[in-house]
Amino acid sequence: MPVYGELVIVVTPRGKRGLHRVLENQDLHTRDGVLRMADIAQAEYGSEVLTSQGVPYRLYRPTLSDLVQGVKRQTQILYPKDIGYICTRLGVGPGRTVIEAGTGSGSLTAALAWFSGPTGHVHTFEAREEFQKLAAKNLDKLGLLGENVTMHLGDIAEGFDGVTGADALFLDVRTPQAYLEHIPEACCPGAALAFLLPTVNQVTLLLEGLEQGPFDDVEVCELMIRKWKPIVDRLRPEDRMIAHTGFLIFARLQEKSDLWERFRVQSLGTRERKQEASRRQRLGLPPLESLESAEITGSSTEDL
Amino acid sequence: MPVYGELVIVVTPRGKRGLHRVLENQDLHTRDGVLRMADIAQAEYGSEVLTSQGVPYRLYRPTLSDLVQGVKRQTQILYPKDIGYICTRLGVGPGRTVIEAGTGSGSLTAALAWFSGPTGHVHTFEAREEFQKLAAKNLDKLGLLGENVTMHLGDIAEGFDGVTGADALFLDVRTPQAYLEHIPEACCPGAALAFLLPTVNQVTLLLEGLEQGPFDDVEVCELMIRKWKPIVDRLRPEDRMIAHTGFLIFARLQEKSDLWERFRVQSLGTRERKQEASRRQRLGLPPLESLESAEITGSSTEDL
Amino acid sequence: MPVYGELVIVVTPRGKRGLHRVLENQDLHTRDGVLRMADIAQAEYGSEVLTSQGVPYRLYRPTLSDLVQGVKRQTQILYPKDIGYICTRLGVGPGRTVIEAGTGSGSLTAALAWFSGPTGHVHTFEAREEFQKLAAKNLDKLGLLGENVTMHLGDIAEGFDGVTGADALFLDVRTPQAYLEHIPEACCPGAALAFLLPTVNQVTLLLEGLEQGPFDDVEVCELMIRKWKPIVDRLRPEDRMIAHTGFLIFARLQEKSDLWERFRVQSLGTRERKQEASRRQRLGLPPLESLESAEITGSSTEDL
Amino acid sequence: MPVYGELVIVVTPRGKRGLHRVLENQDLHTRDGVLRMADIAQAEYGSEVLTSQGVPYRLYRPTLSDLVQGVKRQTQILYPKDIGYICTRLGVGPGRTVIEAGTGSGSLTAALAWFSGPTGHVHTFEAREEFQKLAAKNLDKLGLLGENVTMHLGDIAEGFDGVTGADALFLDVRTPQAYLEHIPEACCPGAALAFLLPTVNQVTLLLEGLEQGPFDDVEVCELMIRKWKPIVDRLRPEDRMIAHTGFLIFARLQEKSDLWERFRVQSLGTRERKQEASRRQRLGLPPLESLESAEITGSSTEDL
Repeated sequence: MPVYGELVIVVTPRGKRGLHRVLENQDLHTRDGVLRMADIAQAEYGSEVLTSQGVPYRLYRPTLSDLVQGVKRQTQILYPKDIGYICTRLGVGPGRTVIEAGTGSGSLTAALAWFSGPTGHVHTFEAREEFQKLAAKNLDKLGLLGENVTMHLGDIAEGFDGVTGADALFLDVRTPQAYLEHIPEACCPGAALAFLLPTVNQVTLLLEGLEQGPFDDVEVCELMIRKWKPIVDRLRPEDRMIAHTGFLIFARLQEKSDLWERFRVQSLGTRERKQEASRRQRLGLPPLESLESAEITGSSTEDL
Repeated sequence: MPVYGELVIVVTPRGKRGLHRVLENQDLHTRDGVLRMADIAQAEYGSEVLTSQGVPYRLYRPTLSDLVQGVKRQTQILYPKDIGYICTRLGVGPGRTVIEAGTGSGSLTAALAWFSGPTGHVHTFEAREEFQKLAAKNLDKLGLLGENVTMHLGDIAEGFDGVTGADALFLDVRTPQAYLEHIPEACCPGAALAFLLPTVNQVTLLLEGLEQGPFDDVEVCELMIRKWKPIVDRLRPEDRMIAHTGFLIFARLQEKSDLWERFRVQSLGTRERKQEASRRQRLGLPPLESLESAEITGSSTEDL
Repeated sequence: MPVYGELVIVVTPRGKRGLHRVLENQDLHTRDGVLRMADIAQAEYGSEVLTSQGVPYRLYRPTLSDLVQGVKRQTQILYPKDIGYICTRLGVGPGRTVIEAGTGSGSLTAALAWFSGPTGHVHTFEAREEFQKLAAKNLDKLGLLGENVTMHLGDIAEGFDGVTGADALFLDVRTPQAYLEHIPEACCPGAALAFLLPTVNQVTLLLEGLEQGPFDDVEVCELMIRKWKPIVDRLRPEDRMIAHTGFLIFARLQEKSDLWERFRVQSLGTRERKQEASRRQRLGLPPLESLESAEITGSSTEDL
Repeated sequence: MPVYGELVIVVTPRGKRGLHRVLENQDLHTRDGVLRMADIAQAEYGSEVLTSQGVPYRLYRPTLSDLVQGVKRQTQILYPKDIGYICTRLGVGPGRTVIEAGTGSGSLTAALAWFSGPTGHVHTFEAREEFQKLAAKNLDKLGLLGENVTMHLGDIAEGFDGVTGADALFLDVRTPQAYLEHIPEACCPGAALAFLLPTVNQVTLLLEGLEQGPFDDVEVCELMIRKWKPIVDRLRPEDRMIAHTGFLIFARLQEKSDLWERFRVQSLGTRERKQEASRRQRLGLPPLESLESAEITGSSTEDL
């Protein structure tokens, strides 16, 4: 049973959904008449409450997916499929600190705050004040603007406002390569990084930036969801699907020592060696052969 | 810097990964010689530690994705793409209670425990003792067998061991339709439900079961991940991909009143009406027309 | 330069396309004014012709894809992606005979006739007279109702109207399994067969039918086309795509001798053996073991 | 029944396939013993012939798909899914002339020759003599090196060897943009063009080239095939699939008059207008506004 102050998803028989906080004397005015808060507060989750015109509306306790979709948006928001995967890959959770830029409408921020719990922390950056205000309002409405969220206003061109030691970072900005230089200051060595970009041109520019280091373990992927019509005797995929929301790019904040590279290169196949050779040439690095023949001293060999 | 007792991901230059707890005097014996725990404990995350043969190994602080993939498996485990989406759709998180069956090797259990945090709770059920032991060992190793996890041993054919009021439930079993009858006892009305099934035959049987109620908002989908080769000047998708891990089915624990159905049916298009008519016939329900003409009294119309 | 009697694709600057035959005194009346046939007959393919209101319309010589999309439809038509693959897999071409049912609006019939050329032959069957008339009209308009096409009116429940020796057969009907029994009479042994079905329920019923024999080499697949936005500096997939047109099922008309099965089974892996054992049980066939131990005499061993 | 001189597909119970011509006294030596041509010549298509060791081999009349896969390859060959779609989009068929470069191993050439029939024509270009020889051998073996195929040896950097008036053209070369300038000489105005490229970098360069004109109606797409396991009671997609063979790019050889552009631009939405404005700027074309205000005289307005 929702208590006053809680959030509730209200669904109509026509499939419309709304996210509302249960507040005394704040009845909902719908196209089917008034839905009284007093009735909501006395109903069970999963039950139906009638509007003044006798139309049944359902009450659900919101899932994270419901919350994210309940966000008022002035920007493109992330989809649940991408949100879940990003949080899993970044290790967002209790005890972890994550940086996000830009905040946008706050849909991913909501998820980060949700999964972080009271012992994790989210630093979210937004350059445009109107977006930050919108996101703050959204998070507040969702009950996720807790002490585990710090909202930073300002461009990240100068860095991440003194934040240090983050375990993970997510950039959803047009030119993420422009901000790579500030990541080592803000994140732990080895931190997990993720980026979302719509076009392959942007992906290429980001990959070029990541190649300059100190980054490694770069991955690029797309996540596609294909819905099916859930009809018992005519089971089949939906006719249409969303074909593209964006490319996801993952990496680690990671120096690559020559010693590491020497051993890594040894395990490559013929074609990968060729690609590596061409990459080194493009970057102006010494050729593969030099790497393999050189005397390379690890930083702590004397210990072993 | 990892402290004694923490988990660390160790990566070799050949790309092999291992999950280890930093424990005094428990040096790792690798194919590249000994990796000393004392060295690990003095190194930064993201740095390289040399084995006794001078090969550099990297240390990472594990993400959830790392943890899940570090699970010792005797069963098929879930992929990060599915894990993230399931947790997002089910609303797993602080303050929420989720039921899972079967536990299997514990990979999803780990994610549920991770995201639940200290204020959420996971009830996981497994019929086979050897799997439960394996899962317990895995969770313990991951540091995720906390007070927020209850492991139940036994078949769910008789129900969910007295658990009540769960907010969400996930079934990864061969014949989930056999256990639907126990869901209302174990979960809150309106609870979010999810199922994973590999074949369309199983999906059909589950959909038939869900049709009997009390369930609604049924969705079926597939989630596909397509990796790209992250090569700046030859950017292209990988040649091969995993084409199928399973179908995901989502639903809500939800009674459908005749009143709800009457209003819902009014909003259907011609083709959907036809499908609904055929569904009602298959299920032995009164025809659509009767629904529309009947005197239906909502449970609380007198209030309004 | 189109000559009188030829077909021409006319494209407007707004992207509308029409298929027209160049006929004297049959000027086209468009929303941009009159397009004179005399002007078309004097223009080059690829050039622009002005309407009476001065709007330029382009002329193209139609490709097969243009023709298929120019078909007037009262039924679902096949997409070029499926048409091309079906024709390639069935070996439609000069010197080959192919059977099709149902004719529908004639879009695939057009492709079969096109690729068959004067030395191939297409037999197309349609039960409903109004569809056959529409298809005939469409084919005639496309100039593809030549001597290499025979249109049969009538249900195929009684067979394929005496046609024998076809090299290939395509069924686009609701219950193809009902007509499998007539295929051996109409087709050559070894003939290539294809089927298009929208739902997995139908696919299952067809697979059950094919299992009864005499059929083998059964394949099921889906073909998906994903369009990209062809923008140089913002290259990315389209936001939406068609997710499903139908499942394609391929097979050969083929007896399976016990001798063949004995040798085939020997090459199976453990899991495939298990599936085969369960299949044999379902079909009431002797168990795998009997197959392997029995004395099996091939039909022509005396020769060797 | 195969007659001497015909091609036959021979399939073993282990699933191996071979393409052979039925020739007197040219018995096949297999790992299961000798397969006698005299036996093949007396057997029906679809029947089994025993090797000298008593193993049954099947005979099929080859489909186009069988032929293409029977090609001996030293290069990447095209897949049937792409072949069928390319031929459909290009309008390859009786009475049409198509240009292809490079010939490679001749797999697409085989399909073009097959579909063209005796009244169509294929001009195929290859720069490397060893590939041309291989392709000629392959086509000859397939019985497709008929009078409707002309093989050109030489680089297309200087053009298409005097060929003119082709209806369609397909380029499967690394840098197709380098050869665009020769297309107008070799093809009819309005000709249908297609290109296959593995990486997005190459697609971008080609799109830049096509933008210079005289080309229009540019499309980019990917074709994906997803196979299912055809098991009646466990129907599901295969675990793995081929995720990428290449991007297909289609266009028309087409001048764009200012008059056309003026009318086309009028029908664009806001976002498309923006993209068009940025494209014009990138290409150094006059701004959109000038196009719309200018006095533009069509070539034949006096007629209307």
